[in-house]
Amino acid sequence: MDHERGHALWVYAHPRAESLNAQLRDAGAARLRADGWTVDVADLYAEGFDPILVEEGGADVRAEQRRLLAADLVVLQFPLWWYGPPAMLKGWIDRVFERGFAYDVADPATGRNRKYGDGGLAGRRALAVVTAGDRADSISPRGISGDVEDLFWPLLHGTFWYTGMEALAPHLITGVHGIDDAGIARLARDLGARLGAIAAEEPIPYLPMTDEFYDHSIALHPHVSSGLTGGAAHRRPS
Amino acid sequence: MDHERGHALWVYAHPRAESLNAQLRDAGAARLRADGWTVDVADLYAEGFDPILVEEGGADVRAEQRRLLAADLVVLQFPLWWYGPPAMLKGWIDRVFERGFAYDVADPATGRNRKYGDGGLAGRRALAVVTAGDRADSISPRGISGDVEDLFWPLLHGTFWYTGMEALAPHLITGVHGIDDAGIARLARDLGARLGAIAAEEPIPYLPMTDEFYDHSIALHPHVSSGLTGGAAHRRPS
Repeated sequence: MDHERGHALWVYAHPRAESLNAQLRDAGAARLRADGWTVDVADLYAEGFDPILVEEGGADVRAEQRRLLAADLVVLQFPLWWYGPPAMLKGWIDRVFERGFAYDVADPATGRNRKYGDGGLAGRRALAVVTAGDRADSISPRGISGDVEDLFWPLLHGTFWYTGMEALAPHLITGVHGIDDAGIARLARDLGARLGAIAAEEPIPYLPMTDEFYDHSIALHPHVSSGLTGGAAHRRPS
Repeated sequence: MDHERGHALWVYAHPRAESLNAQLRDAGAARLRADGWTVDVADLYAEGFDPILVEEGGADVRAEQRRLLAADLVVLQFPLWWYGPPAMLKGWIDRVFERGFAYDVADPATGRNRKYGDGGLAGRRALAVVTAGDRADSISPRGISGDVEDLFWPLLHGTFWYTGMEALAPHLITGVHGIDDAGIARLARDLGARLGAIAAEEPIPYLPMTDEFYDHSIALHPHVSSGLTGGAAHRRPS
């Protein structure tokens, strides 16, 4: 499946303007533009986004929702803090991905609430670009930090896929403490190469939430992914 | 192992004062006090905590750190939003669990930076009390939301255990949408029963980050938990 180059929303959550993350963001957005994409950079700290959900809605939330709806590709870039996104980005999701907008959108044909592969953001693809201080081997199936797809399960399956977006494998950059300029240049090239091929990349083949795969309690039927547990059980067999 | 009843810090992150969560918080704190604990309730929304990490430190962070150090039991209570804590609580962790305070505390005897079972919060136990709209079966090894310990791995292992706190199994309350007063009373009784026995409860037996279990890349030695991956690989065999 080759997706047309189109419009990308690049959501960025890092507090320091001179960070490695800022350099990667600029390199990534430049690469997409060079390839023919239009890019909207949402720098949440610089824009002063308020990530604290008190009540639903608000003019700022509507504006962020319009940015999301305009995008064919959504990139969330953040440093891994406590094995998750910074509060700034978590709160952007908490507030912007509202019920009735991002999920539980009623399907007028069936009356069912759309989610998991069929939410309000269906038709989009989503990529997490994440920097971590951990060594590469510590984020692995037997590493102390756990497997990358387990770590990102809440984001990949519980957020991207839940709202209908196709989840691309996370672009995880490890061992960033004390990296030098040559190392940064290499990381920027690697990210550019990934983005250059992103329109043709296959997403993680998560199963849709249909009666074919899930029972009424929303657990897998016994004959689906028999014997498997964890994230791997929720993928189409390759 | 029976821990003395002592002092509990109950960190609470929910925006609405009249919520189910507020009733459970009050019931839980009352039960602990009735059992002889002293309890400090940190109501992050009501106290106006600023969860956005811009620069490290700050007088408010020092105050939260003192609250943590005073506690024998740390309870984090929150509604499950996007399979993780609300931004308010994530940011409390982002800001308060600083390097040199909660982890990478230098051990003067060995010069090693203490973490994973031996961080700056060692000697404490931690419990997550979490409400979710999901049906119980959907948060299970083959449920669409994934297994409870996989979902909470970043918090249980990557935060509690990383900073030296013993992680108790999460107290997960599912199916809370539309619950009635009788249902709330039952949930409060269940939580009280759990808390009444908490001093004697066995924590999750995560492996310490020592040369006995982990290699230099901080992955498990081949002979440790052979054949296992995921969170189960990082526990002592039962």
